[in-house]
Amino acid sequence: MTTLSVFALGGLNEIGKNMYVIQYDDDIVIVDCGSKFPDESSLGVDLIIQDIAYLKENREKIRGLLVTHGHEDHIGGIPYFLKQINVPVYATRLTLGLINIKLKEHGLLRNTDLQLIHGDSSLNFGTMDVTFFKTNHSIPDCLGIVFHTPEGVVVHTGDFKFDFTPINNDYADINKMAEIGSKGVLLLLSESTNAERPGFNPSERLIGKKIEEEFRKARKKIFISTFASNVHRVQQVVDAAHKTNRKLALLGRSMVNVVSVAEELGYLHIPEGMLIEKQDIDQFDPEEVAILCTGSQGEAMAALSRLSTSNFRQVKIHSDDTVIFASSPIPGNEKNVSQVIDNLLHLGANVIYGSGSGTGLHVSGHACQEELKLMLTLMKPKYFMPIHGEFRMLHKHRSLAESVGVEFDNIFIMNNGDVIEITNGEARQTKTVHSGHIFVDGLGIGDVGNVVLRDRKLLSEEGIVVIVVTINRNNGELVSNPDIISRGFVYRRDAEELIQEVNDLVIKKVAELQGVNRNQQGVVRQTLKKATEQLLYVETKRRPMILPIVIEV
Amino acid sequence: MTTLSVFALGGLNEIGKNMYVIQYDDDIVIVDCGSKFPDESSLGVDLIIQDIAYLKENREKIRGLLVTHGHEDHIGGIPYFLKQINVPVYATRLTLGLINIKLKEHGLLRNTDLQLIHGDSSLNFGTMDVTFFKTNHSIPDCLGIVFHTPEGVVVHTGDFKFDFTPINNDYADINKMAEIGSKGVLLLLSESTNAERPGFNPSERLIGKKIEEEFRKARKKIFISTFASNVHRVQQVVDAAHKTNRKLALLGRSMVNVVSVAEELGYLHIPEGMLIEKQDIDQFDPEEVAILCTGSQGEAMAALSRLSTSNFRQVKIHSDDTVIFASSPIPGNEKNVSQVIDNLLHLGANVIYGSGSGTGLHVSGHACQEELKLMLTLMKPKYFMPIHGEFRMLHKHRSLAESVGVEFDNIFIMNNGDVIEITNGEARQTKTVHSGHIFVDGLGIGDVGNVVLRDRKLLSEEGIVVIVVTINRNNGELVSNPDIISRGFVYRRDAEELIQEVNDLVIKKVAELQGVNRNQQGVVRQTLKKATEQLLYVETKRRPMILPIVIEV
Repeated sequence: MTTLSVFALGGLNEIGKNMYVIQYDDDIVIVDCGSKFPDESSLGVDLIIQDIAYLKENREKIRGLLVTHGHEDHIGGIPYFLKQINVPVYATRLTLGLINIKLKEHGLLRNTDLQLIHGDSSLNFGTMDVTFFKTNHSIPDCLGIVFHTPEGVVVHTGDFKFDFTPINNDYADINKMAEIGSKGVLLLLSESTNAERPGFNPSERLIGKKIEEEFRKARKKIFISTFASNVHRVQQVVDAAHKTNRKLALLGRSMVNVVSVAEELGYLHIPEGMLIEKQDIDQFDPEEVAILCTGSQGEAMAALSRLSTSNFRQVKIHSDDTVIFASSPIPGNEKNVSQVIDNLLHLGANVIYGSGSGTGLHVSGHACQEELKLMLTLMKPKYFMPIHGEFRMLHKHRSLAESVGVEFDNIFIMNNGDVIEITNGEARQTKTVHSGHIFVDGLGIGDVGNVVLRDRKLLSEEGIVVIVVTINRNNGELVSNPDIISRGFVYRRDAEELIQEVNDLVIKKVAELQGVNRNQQGVVRQTLKKATEQLLYVETKRRPMILPIVIEV
Repeated sequence: MTTLSVFALGGLNEIGKNMYVIQYDDDIVIVDCGSKFPDESSLGVDLIIQDIAYLKENREKIRGLLVTHGHEDHIGGIPYFLKQINVPVYATRLTLGLINIKLKEHGLLRNTDLQLIHGDSSLNFGTMDVTFFKTNHSIPDCLGIVFHTPEGVVVHTGDFKFDFTPINNDYADINKMAEIGSKGVLLLLSESTNAERPGFNPSERLIGKKIEEEFRKARKKIFISTFASNVHRVQQVVDAAHKTNRKLALLGRSMVNVVSVAEELGYLHIPEGMLIEKQDIDQFDPEEVAILCTGSQGEAMAALSRLSTSNFRQVKIHSDDTVIFASSPIPGNEKNVSQVIDNLLHLGANVIYGSGSGTGLHVSGHACQEELKLMLTLMKPKYFMPIHGEFRMLHKHRSLAESVGVEFDNIFIMNNGDVIEITNGEARQTKTVHSGHIFVDGLGIGDVGNVVLRDRKLLSEEGIVVIVVTINRNNGELVSNPDIISRGFVYRRDAEELIQEVNDLVIKKVAELQGVNRNQQGVVRQTLKKATEQLLYVETKRRPMILPIVIEV
């Protein structure tokens, strides 16, 4: 019996590393391949991606990877994925442009089959036909996806919001969505990022008006920071600079990259002669220049952070310059953003920022509750699976779906790997396929795991004490004084006495252990470890990692 | 020439570890002695307190420590302070009760001179008289302080808000504040925590109404979490439980401690027979019990966190129980709180929480912009020094003060240690006294410094690789194979090859170094360190801490 299966390999009960799988018979189509940024619990990890063991086992069934839009949480894992599974990648023009930057960095450009699609494309993948609809979001050229399967229609919204007055008249296909819904949707997968937020997002255009107001008020240089990928907002910054007769300089690698791709592909219109190089900023009067830069989230190495501590070569922020945050801090980034604001105020800048979420020069790219209800109302799905979000967001999205008429029992709140199977029009949650997360750290993919992270956490909180003893292999006697070395534990100059105590204890324990079988090096190590742990805990109430090293000569 | 000096040793450009010093001639009076919780940058540190070197040098001049209220950021440093400088401590009844708990834990109760004061107390400290005024805040029994010095009146507000309908009719002395202002205030120190927030706080009573509504809706057990020290909110929880005929159990050490102190001192009124022990909860039907617990900030070891993961012995949360967060996440705690909410939803609980700041069952204890302006308007100070806050809050408070008529040049935005001196009615920022922060880690005070923290950070991000070589002291030859041990770096089983490469490199380098003078152990260590760093960076793009240990036998 053939079955339609739908599941996530990333994106459920988390924000980021989105990947959804639609399988009918022997045809697998993948939606998105994002990455996720680690939080403080993943110490030192650069990036988190999906465990794609299931897909590697079924690689001959995979027909393609469809990409809804060009944000990191939807494209960031693509290079790592393609190194393991080389399948055609389908995306719109801007999305392909952004994927290209990544593939170039990873040296994968030549061997990848990239296919350009748009809102009216129609594709066939064996048993499935696929069509699309355009959506609004905080980056242009976003798609929702419609899978026409023998069981019925499955719709994946991608990320979306509704903006009836979008920048560049980049309208969403609302009537098409309604048509899809009228013809019958078996299963809807819809994003849940803002399911906790009441109301309806204001239009991006409002932000443009506010940016222009601030540009008109400014008397000296203007620095303005936003996400580079928010091309519509970048366009509004360009427009404000144009209307107030300012040249525009770009700071930060991602800003330069994205703006050049977006302009080249026609998503961004910059008047001839407006862009200047950063080294030429000082050739103009302050009131003739605006600087668009990265770092709106307070990222330590981004342009705005470095500007705020006067650590940006060539460009300086002076007293009475204006700095505009055209952004809101993402939860978790508040402290870093606050630090940057404090530093900017210390420089004497006039800083325009929102206090608290929802204020300031920013609108979200994700549908709020009324928009989510609009999507559910347009699609009228029989079955519903909230996606893209932590548990409480999925949970809230379920109650929104119920409020517009989806039956409670037809709503599936799933984990990554949990499979919905639909047969004869009936959906059930059945099996679970393998899923998980892989840490990317430096050049290593997957070589940092939970043991390593646990060690890093212990090291970070208590430090390490290394004990080296050299003993005679024949009689177990100490050959020389033990070496006690600590890092990240206590000041060395204050701890001489403590280290001496450890030293004495180690000498005593080694003497006691002289009778122990020479083959039981493990016993010596364990004994030294335990005794030292106990001593240090009593003396300091801390538990540093103890690393005993026994050398026999 | 005698001078009035005013400065902070903590509380400026930071939230927490408040301490202000008022000195006239040879009389020093200290206001508050708080602690501060470390953020992620202070890995593993338990607490941060003031560097009080200045006070130790001038200990014979100190007349007393006045405490405005019983929050940690105002009393948390007292035990550490008293161990170094034993002076009388003046505080209101509830504040003294909370200080007592601390002193008991530190074994300091017997040797401390604790003096009970209230809103109408009047004290003399040599050249200065001191009076007080009552304020509203998120803990009862708060005072503002008035210093009557030969130069004029200095007012310190402590933390405050205005609540015209306070719980227990615990009114602030607004008319007294007006009187003080009418008689003339030379310098006002006023708190700035909410200077970025527009408007006027709603009354705490509104929260009581909302809590009661939720209590009436709940069908099973109710768990409700708030700060233990918010005695007025605890009172409203007690009232809601009483009105809905529920018994009340307390979970969490600080909840039990604070409630018992507050009840004993008459700040909290709990009907006879209402409190039950946690082990007796299951003797009642679910709809007959409410549980007041700690953990509203998602703290890992607090009651609510442990309940959310079913790790609390004796008490369990079941499906359809109600969990109420009578709190807002403090910036930085959002992720932990979200995790607890997700876990509670997984248990099937009905969770009542706000999404985003300013929503939910919480009002702030700190004056918003209109309240700050009211204080400034009542006091009409000649000079103004915004206190309690990060730079952008002090900065914003300055513009609020300007807007109600304080002259820009008379407003002092200071750093900890910066001294305002007032002579003949003229204030100037003159010298700077020593200030700083001291880390408390386990039993150690001040033995963790920046070097240790830098090491912890490096260890936390990249781990450590220890290289042990044993060489013959006569000819510099290796006596045995090197030991290469890593922690927090990479999985050991995947890294065998890499470790082997390091091993080979070390052997090679030691051989090359055989000619080096035996006294130059440092050269051997440095060479091994550099070579290994380089190899690992090329192979992994990571820079773990390398700890080379050379043993000569």
